Amino acid sequence: MKLLQERIETSAQIVDHNIVRVDMFLNHQIDVQLLDQMGEEFYRLFGPLHVTKILTAEASGIAIACLAALHFKVPVVYAKKGFVRTQGSNVYSTEVFSYTRNKTTQISVAQAYLKPDDRVLIIDDFLASGSAVLGLKEIVDKAGAHLVGVGIAIEKGFQDGGKKLRDMQINLRSLAIISSIENGRVVFLEE
Amino acid sequence: MKLLQERIETSAQIVDHNIVRVDMFLNHQIDVQLLDQMGEEFYRLFGPLHVTKILTAEASGIAIACLAALHFKVPVVYAKKGFVRTQGSNVYSTEVFSYTRNKTTQISVAQAYLKPDDRVLIIDDFLASGSAVLGLKEIVDKAGAHLVGVGIAIEKGFQDGGKKLRDMQINLRSLAIISSIENGRVVFLEE
Repeated sequence: MKLLQERIETSAQIVDHNIVRVDMFLNHQIDVQLLDQMGEEFYRLFGPLHVTKILTAEASGIAIACLAALHFKVPVVYAKKGFVRTQGSNVYSTEVFSYTRNKTTQISVAQAYLKPDDRVLIIDDFLASGSAVLGLKEIVDKAGAHLVGVGIAIEKGFQDGGKKLRDMQINLRSLAIISSIENGRVVFLEE
Repeated sequence: MKLLQERIETSAQIVDHNIVRVDMFLNHQIDVQLLDQMGEEFYRLFGPLHVTKILTAEASGIAIACLAALHFKVPVVYAKKGFVRTQGSNVYSTEVFSYTRNKTTQISVAQAYLKPDDRVLIIDDFLASGSAVLGLKEIVDKAGAHLVGVGIAIEKGFQDGGKKLRDMQINLRSLAIISSIENGRVVFLEE
């Protein structure tokens, strides 16, 4: 998606050859107009697939998932991190390892909000190793629901998450794929 | 707001005389159409005040803040919980005590995203003791920005947060104020 690539080129802060910081428009300060247009693009890509629910993970996926859901006119469910106090024991849970934070986190979804007849689109801000998306997929599987696709804002094409998911025949679409970060500049792969 | 009160009456789960669970439409599963209408109502209440930024706290405030921001056409900034790794030391921080969780959490906002010329509207899902909002207000004050108001989805009128904020002359508006929970039913206060 040209608009997102341009924003990354003009605004993102290159930390090193692995890390691009986009907290000025995506995951700390949020440009809701941009995310609304990204949501429209997700709808163009996944709209015909009869999505009934959008699933994401707390916290950085919530904004992009909600602005996409407005176009799909379906509810968002976000997996909660850590021990889920208010929901009792009726949850689908799994563990997700974050390479960035070097720690394992439990994520959970109340069973009431994912049903076998749900057609689920997973949306997240970043795809790197794929562990977050695979954790969300495990929760969809535990619910007996159908995963129709995975929509990602920014895929780090130089990490193996995208390959893993595509090898599993998952319908993965990323709005921007960074193939490398060279000399302080981002190089994109055209999907 | 009639629509929100009706949804609370029809959907919310009364846990006891203190706790109403709304995770079926507000803070686990999210009814984005409802939140969009709540965002429109916040715009009706605060639109004339020249808001330049909406501030909320991770994680449950993000959805309602983003859907409101679409109407205001301004960015959202959400305070991050815990140790903020990617932002270096240039953050405004404070500690917030959660009575529900009985623990103190540090919340932080990168200094780059709140400036002295910002006119800030704080939006959050719940107001109970007021500690989260007061923490966010402290961050606004540290940035030297101007707090134009506080918009809350559901205020627990039987806790003292609302009184504290109103006594401080803060322009607080809550879309639904629960005055009490009696015999498994929610009683609303009309603002």
